[in-house]
Amino acid sequence: MRNIKLVMQYDGTHYHGWQVQPGTATIQSVLQERIATITGEEISSIAAGRTDAGVHALAQVAAFKTTSRLSCDTLKNALNALLPGDIRITAASDADLSFHPRYDAKGKVYFYIVANMQVLSPFLHNYAWRVPQPLDLQSMCSAANFMHGTHDFTSFRASGCGAKTPIKTIFHSTIERLDSLEFMTAGLSGNFLKLRIEGDGFLRHMVRNIAGTIVEIGKGKISPDMIEKLFIAKDRRLAGPTAPARGLFLERVNYT
Amino acid sequence: MRNIKLVMQYDGTHYHGWQVQPGTATIQSVLQERIATITGEEISSIAAGRTDAGVHALAQVAAFKTTSRLSCDTLKNALNALLPGDIRITAASDADLSFHPRYDAKGKVYFYIVANMQVLSPFLHNYAWRVPQPLDLQSMCSAANFMHGTHDFTSFRASGCGAKTPIKTIFHSTIERLDSLEFMTAGLSGNFLKLRIEGDGFLRHMVRNIAGTIVEIGKGKISPDMIEKLFIAKDRRLAGPTAPARGLFLERVNYT
Repeated sequence: MRNIKLVMQYDGTHYHGWQVQPGTATIQSVLQERIATITGEEISSIAAGRTDAGVHALAQVAAFKTTSRLSCDTLKNALNALLPGDIRITAASDADLSFHPRYDAKGKVYFYIVANMQVLSPFLHNYAWRVPQPLDLQSMCSAANFMHGTHDFTSFRASGCGAKTPIKTIFHSTIERLDSLEFMTAGLSGNFLKLRIEGDGFLRHMVRNIAGTIVEIGKGKISPDMIEKLFIAKDRRLAGPTAPARGLFLERVNYT
Repeated sequence: MRNIKLVMQYDGTHYHGWQVQPGTATIQSVLQERIATITGEEISSIAAGRTDAGVHALAQVAAFKTTSRLSCDTLKNALNALLPGDIRITAASDADLSFHPRYDAKGKVYFYIVANMQVLSPFLHNYAWRVPQPLDLQSMCSAANFMHGTHDFTSFRASGCGAKTPIKTIFHSTIERLDSLEFMTAGLSGNFLKLRIEGDGFLRHMVRNIAGTIVEIGKGKISPDMIEKLFIAKDRRLAGPTAPARGLFLERVNYT
């Protein structure tokens, strides 16, 4: 028996998230079908982060057990030949049989793209949240700074979140203005803001709730130090709205 | 009566090209439906370039006649509110009643994106042609140079092309390597090559046939000076294959 570790990129637009759901296309179901075609085995796969519908990934980590003797390179190339173009395998390797993509993860990096513009490029409408109002970058950076450290994220937690504890540690939290994205930004005015956040774990909708709150701060509706009050209040109703899924990307999963 | 000039961006992936075709979604049909909703008038629109299915635009120019008294800004905003996110209006203005987007155009700029990589980003699979083989950039630039000037483009013309003459003048023809496209290229190796070509007019499939031929030259299958021979031979069978529509963008239409 082997345990194959995959690194995947996907555009989540046309999928109902990672996890298998009867009657709908999900990343996991499409992946498992293609693996079955190649290996002849009905396998079940595990991912580091069970991304929601519409959420994207640049380096999702998944694993599956197989008795196939195909080389990792052959598996990777066969999968890329069979998978639709919006799901790509960037690496395949043999992992320890005990490797578990989710339990073994030491941390994850997500980023969220806000398009601060009147007209959003037709090439980016599935990859960014358009916010046409003026945004104060300095307040937003200041709010992002308040995220650092270990906090109770109950105010940023979706109802139905199954995590054991709302206490999470944020290692990095930054906002940067993105330069031109070539043809995706040609002829349009405005900025892209990229909120990047690295932590030891994330609650359901946590990054989207943080993004929604930081945009409210950018609009001047909430002051940046409200973040500290939200950690203490533990009340989802006091934070900003949940930013749409389409702007969210799982960037990396760290195992060391 | 007014003649409204629109500048449009669109992602052509989900449309059967510009032109109205019964039973399918086209850019023109979607635009005209939304204009009818706003003005209450059944109008017909004209575009500078009748892009094929899957071809994109950064600044397509269209025009339509209306008796509506709505301001151009109101028209633009109402259209952007009603149109799907893959079609955007970047400008609307009153033009001379005699203005015709196609007949009045003095020239057009197209570009074509080749992804020279093993694995193409899932975010770009509708916007580039993946060519995994090594490509010699110098030969390709040299081939692009041969395009300059006035030539008979019969060897690059699709069957069924209705243009009166195959003689066209190319003002600029360049190939550049694109820098990183932010999250679209993160974690992937390889280059994007952008073939950009400006001319007084283009035949059916001309840019895609030029792109297909220049890629053959990049692979070393044809020598760059074959371009000159193709102008003389006037034989479509001697040039390279037609590059796929998804890599092609109408960048600009010039009226002066």
